[in-house]
Amino acid sequence: MGNTQDDIRVGVLGASGYTGADLVRLLVAHPRARITLMTADRHAGKPMESVFPHLGGYDLPDLVKVEDADWDDCDVVVCGLPHGTTQEIIAALPERLKVADMSADFRLRNMDTYAEWYGHEHRAPALQPDAVYGLTEYYRDDISKARLVACPGCYPTAALLLLLPVVGGGLVDADDIVIDAKSGTSGAGRSLKEGTLFCEVAEGIHPYGVASHRHAPEIEQELSVAAGRDLLVNFTPHLMPMNRGELLTTYVRLANGHTANDLRAALAARYADEPFVRLAPQGMAPATRHVRGSNHVLLQVYEDRIPNRAILVSTLDNLVKGSSGQAVQNLNLMFGLPETLGLEQAPLFP
Amino acid sequence: MGNTQDDIRVGVLGASGYTGADLVRLLVAHPRARITLMTADRHAGKPMESVFPHLGGYDLPDLVKVEDADWDDCDVVVCGLPHGTTQEIIAALPERLKVADMSADFRLRNMDTYAEWYGHEHRAPALQPDAVYGLTEYYRDDISKARLVACPGCYPTAALLLLLPVVGGGLVDADDIVIDAKSGTSGAGRSLKEGTLFCEVAEGIHPYGVASHRHAPEIEQELSVAAGRDLLVNFTPHLMPMNRGELLTTYVRLANGHTANDLRAALAARYADEPFVRLAPQGMAPATRHVRGSNHVLLQVYEDRIPNRAILVSTLDNLVKGSSGQAVQNLNLMFGLPETLGLEQAPLFP
Amino acid sequence: MGNTQDDIRVGVLGASGYTGADLVRLLVAHPRARITLMTADRHAGKPMESVFPHLGGYDLPDLVKVEDADWDDCDVVVCGLPHGTTQEIIAALPERLKVADMSADFRLRNMDTYAEWYGHEHRAPALQPDAVYGLTEYYRDDISKARLVACPGCYPTAALLLLLPVVGGGLVDADDIVIDAKSGTSGAGRSLKEGTLFCEVAEGIHPYGVASHRHAPEIEQELSVAAGRDLLVNFTPHLMPMNRGELLTTYVRLANGHTANDLRAALAARYADEPFVRLAPQGMAPATRHVRGSNHVLLQVYEDRIPNRAILVSTLDNLVKGSSGQAVQNLNLMFGLPETLGLEQAPLFP
Amino acid sequence: MGNTQDDIRVGVLGASGYTGADLVRLLVAHPRARITLMTADRHAGKPMESVFPHLGGYDLPDLVKVEDADWDDCDVVVCGLPHGTTQEIIAALPERLKVADMSADFRLRNMDTYAEWYGHEHRAPALQPDAVYGLTEYYRDDISKARLVACPGCYPTAALLLLLPVVGGGLVDADDIVIDAKSGTSGAGRSLKEGTLFCEVAEGIHPYGVASHRHAPEIEQELSVAAGRDLLVNFTPHLMPMNRGELLTTYVRLANGHTANDLRAALAARYADEPFVRLAPQGMAPATRHVRGSNHVLLQVYEDRIPNRAILVSTLDNLVKGSSGQAVQNLNLMFGLPETLGLEQAPLFP
Repeated sequence: MGNTQDDIRVGVLGASGYTGADLVRLLVAHPRARITLMTADRHAGKPMESVFPHLGGYDLPDLVKVEDADWDDCDVVVCGLPHGTTQEIIAALPERLKVADMSADFRLRNMDTYAEWYGHEHRAPALQPDAVYGLTEYYRDDISKARLVACPGCYPTAALLLLLPVVGGGLVDADDIVIDAKSGTSGAGRSLKEGTLFCEVAEGIHPYGVASHRHAPEIEQELSVAAGRDLLVNFTPHLMPMNRGELLTTYVRLANGHTANDLRAALAARYADEPFVRLAPQGMAPATRHVRGSNHVLLQVYEDRIPNRAILVSTLDNLVKGSSGQAVQNLNLMFGLPETLGLEQAPLFP
Repeated sequence: MGNTQDDIRVGVLGASGYTGADLVRLLVAHPRARITLMTADRHAGKPMESVFPHLGGYDLPDLVKVEDADWDDCDVVVCGLPHGTTQEIIAALPERLKVADMSADFRLRNMDTYAEWYGHEHRAPALQPDAVYGLTEYYRDDISKARLVACPGCYPTAALLLLLPVVGGGLVDADDIVIDAKSGTSGAGRSLKEGTLFCEVAEGIHPYGVASHRHAPEIEQELSVAAGRDLLVNFTPHLMPMNRGELLTTYVRLANGHTANDLRAALAARYADEPFVRLAPQGMAPATRHVRGSNHVLLQVYEDRIPNRAILVSTLDNLVKGSSGQAVQNLNLMFGLPETLGLEQAPLFP
Repeated sequence: MGNTQDDIRVGVLGASGYTGADLVRLLVAHPRARITLMTADRHAGKPMESVFPHLGGYDLPDLVKVEDADWDDCDVVVCGLPHGTTQEIIAALPERLKVADMSADFRLRNMDTYAEWYGHEHRAPALQPDAVYGLTEYYRDDISKARLVACPGCYPTAALLLLLPVVGGGLVDADDIVIDAKSGTSGAGRSLKEGTLFCEVAEGIHPYGVASHRHAPEIEQELSVAAGRDLLVNFTPHLMPMNRGELLTTYVRLANGHTANDLRAALAARYADEPFVRLAPQGMAPATRHVRGSNHVLLQVYEDRIPNRAILVSTLDNLVKGSSGQAVQNLNLMFGLPETLGLEQAPLFP
Repeated sequence: MGNTQDDIRVGVLGASGYTGADLVRLLVAHPRARITLMTADRHAGKPMESVFPHLGGYDLPDLVKVEDADWDDCDVVVCGLPHGTTQEIIAALPERLKVADMSADFRLRNMDTYAEWYGHEHRAPALQPDAVYGLTEYYRDDISKARLVACPGCYPTAALLLLLPVVGGGLVDADDIVIDAKSGTSGAGRSLKEGTLFCEVAEGIHPYGVASHRHAPEIEQELSVAAGRDLLVNFTPHLMPMNRGELLTTYVRLANGHTANDLRAALAARYADEPFVRLAPQGMAPATRHVRGSNHVLLQVYEDRIPNRAILVSTLDNLVKGSSGQAVQNLNLMFGLPETLGLEQAPLFP
């Protein structure tokens, strides 16, 4: 983390969650960003080290309440707040402040869909039209000009990077997509829930949010754009005994005489020049541990034994490319910096 | 483990693998069985305790080579040998010996299918016609009269108990079945492979055997019987950072106007009187940890958001109902004992 | 679980914790016990299955509040309540009810020591003199005649079975004992704490309660009896990323010219006839997984490279021999049953 | 990884082990190092990605056999070879090549001690006198001038950083030191051993190498220097179900009237200006997860309840500060670069 006058001064809202902590991890090593504000209502007044000992020893500001934040110290805020609370806070920010939001509050363009899935009317509908969906590889230009970027959910990032090229290209039947997702427990956050106690997660797996997970409409929103019409997907997540990582196994029906090889070629072409998205060599099984701690996404294509079907796999670290890393990637774009700045860490294995 | 004259004397072939060890675990607490022989070629001459310390302190025979086995001591042998090697050993056994085979050698009725998936001609084709497929809940009568029972694979057990009632009843489109499976690492056995080292499994997940796993034809064999015609299924297993347990998330298209509730009713009816198979209460997410260490199977049905689709889940312990427990269940039947004898252990959670 | 008239009718107080659940697991397979009452204040009115799905399918009474308990249905209650709350509840029970208490409330004989370590005066001091310390292997006769048995803590059980013979025999310097303990997370219970969330435990280890853990005075109480004088021990526990199991590595200085072999001989002699305590063969490293799910204890002795020092190891399952299993063992004694009844399960590995 | 003419060209010998892979992870993000050679005999001819998929997408040379290495491409080699094999390879290297050795081959200064613990005479005794023990914080000047640096073992690094100041300062009784160590499984390497299979490690803990681990004489060598006389320590490591990390709980007797606070002060003073070694705030329990993936070391001091005793804790990532990270730290010194270059990554939690 540099310290010069033209550093980007970043405020981290919601620094006491796993997403916030991972953002701080990335920013303390970012050569052009400087953390000047960190909020955490429940822990206000404490040093970050007392909440996250692994972040001790860095020259970080103490945690404050949102209402005590001095926005003059910031050029941009990155929000890692629980959904629902973010809207009003962002609406009240000085207009000159840029915002990268890691919550779900500004991802859905349709306010009715938002209300249906989140259980209340949107509280900042006037801001929503300005929000750019922050899937970097698809909205790069808009993001570079945006004031407010709504960073995608972790599952949508993994699903869309895998499916947009093949749905958009008409290579698969967009009405027959099954996404079986497996996620590490950090995705559930640091708040206290019986379901995320060690003994309730270790040595086991179970589905959750079946046919009711809020990332489904987000996936559908973007796939519908690509398909040119509304569509639904099956999306079934599972909770895994691991800290980080997400793997999506996606079952598709090939369209228009296309083959699994065509899907492979389409993904290879689409991501040939992308720094963070990579198609795995044929036959190599992608694993979450191949991307752990990095901003990388790994994709794979398999031919099924059933004629005209294929199996697609994508994997990423839910806290990095699925959240904080993509936020930094977008922040780089918003400030005209090289997109990969501060995101060069190779995956941590084992 | 009793010790009276009319105990069933059991020989365990392949006692040094995880499956063999779990069989021994069950048999030492079985009130009517007595282990009189244990083979393990590589460890011949050793006490079981030196290979599996958790089985020390029981009055077990030392390990011997198969060729040194004294068959006169046994009424039945249970085979936990690697597939391929089992056929010739079983073919050479005295005819009076009953056999419960936990390997894959006698599961496939079609010898061509066997040769295609296992890479060599079957070495005991004369025995195959006498082998009964040991899915207890479906072949109970045949098993009780059989000399040779081919216990199903772990994945087929989980898949078939879930799907046979709905495929057999014509409730789902038998040509559109996607099975996404997640398994603990004990399923890969105790032999040395880089892929099952702790650091290659912990904190991660990856698919394996995609479109090529040998349990696929086994699932298809039995589902084809139920459907009355040949069919193929998608079957995609994943390796999980847990010791035991298997969870199958199965995606089906409803047929003939049926609803998810009809599937639920069919499963409830079919298993109402089964001691080990249970339909979970509506809305409860089945987890592998709900069945760990027990012979239980837990099933669940979810309605999908996509019209005419449903999500079915089954879970079992791959080493128990998926292998050794089902072998004991069958052994009980083969000797006219109550089917649940020695299998009363409740699941171990946490 | 039988159902005849002379079954022992057991009330389980605090059935919604891990300890309570493990007690239920053992009792449903116990041939002479029958659960007739289960309390769980927060979950009153629910079936056990909704709190612990792995215990679904058993014929269990619904959960009730303690104040709604019908004591007429019980011959004995086993308490798995949080310490502090147990005293008054037990004091108010009908006198004819026997009690096996798994909490810490009646373990310390000295009421001042209790007040010092638990932060309040004891609330049932009149009952304390009647309480028998339930370390089965050492207080067997007293337990068989007791009305109230205070089952030992998990760490004290592991420490005392290892150290009592060598301290009592004067084989080691009782003033130089260092106990480094490692425990699975189930020992911390099912209540919500940030420190037992999956992500705070997995892939790591840390010490806790250093020089302040309440099991220290309990260990010291019993070792002082054996030594014939007051003593202090170092006891340092660590939280481990595993569900169950406890391993104590204990560093001792040999006394009176004794050798590590003498320690070995003393342990072998002391436990030769004990059904649940076993000295490991020389050189075999005891692991928590060797005892998982069972009532077994495994001990080991190593000679140190430093002259006159030895390293002692003990391991047990904190929920079984460290809690519910020992409670059942004591309950058997209290009702004149064979001590091992319902505890015959072999360890579950892997 | 830069690419300019004055980059340091690094050869990685033994790139197919976990240590080698972690070195590559660090070097690909190092601004002044460039990997020009990677050897791995068993995998010669393959791209690194086929051995470690997480390192795909970097511009790395293919793996070659050691005998096919072109040393002209290198300014320095870092050796991650198995001990015993390293000596002859290093002895045969061109003299102008600098060497940072991560094996145990040149750590012990006394050749008799080496022969006793490693089972054979040293094969390059002529080189040994030139080897500098690479504990950076203590041999900084020598390392900066050295041709051959013997990087310390992971356990010795954790033990010595904790104990050298207090032993050297006469604050503790150097003859009464007990080190109870817990390590993640990556420390055992990637070679195939039954003991490091997932199912043999997960959900458990056990001691290993009791009173016989080869890191003991290495710890003793350096502590003896600090104490000014030969001494022995108890060192007992345990294998943990985690990938990375090491935690040492060390039990000491205070000397010369010193208190735990004096130990605290001594550590604080000694490491005040060290970039990677940090004393934790009083009362904060150090955890391996606080340093995961980083070159950090975290220390802590606790007063014991037993008079005149204290408990010291240190933790590090065995693959980073315990191996590859310290090698990079030394490499920076050897080439006159800032010591922290390429090691700025914050710990990865969760």
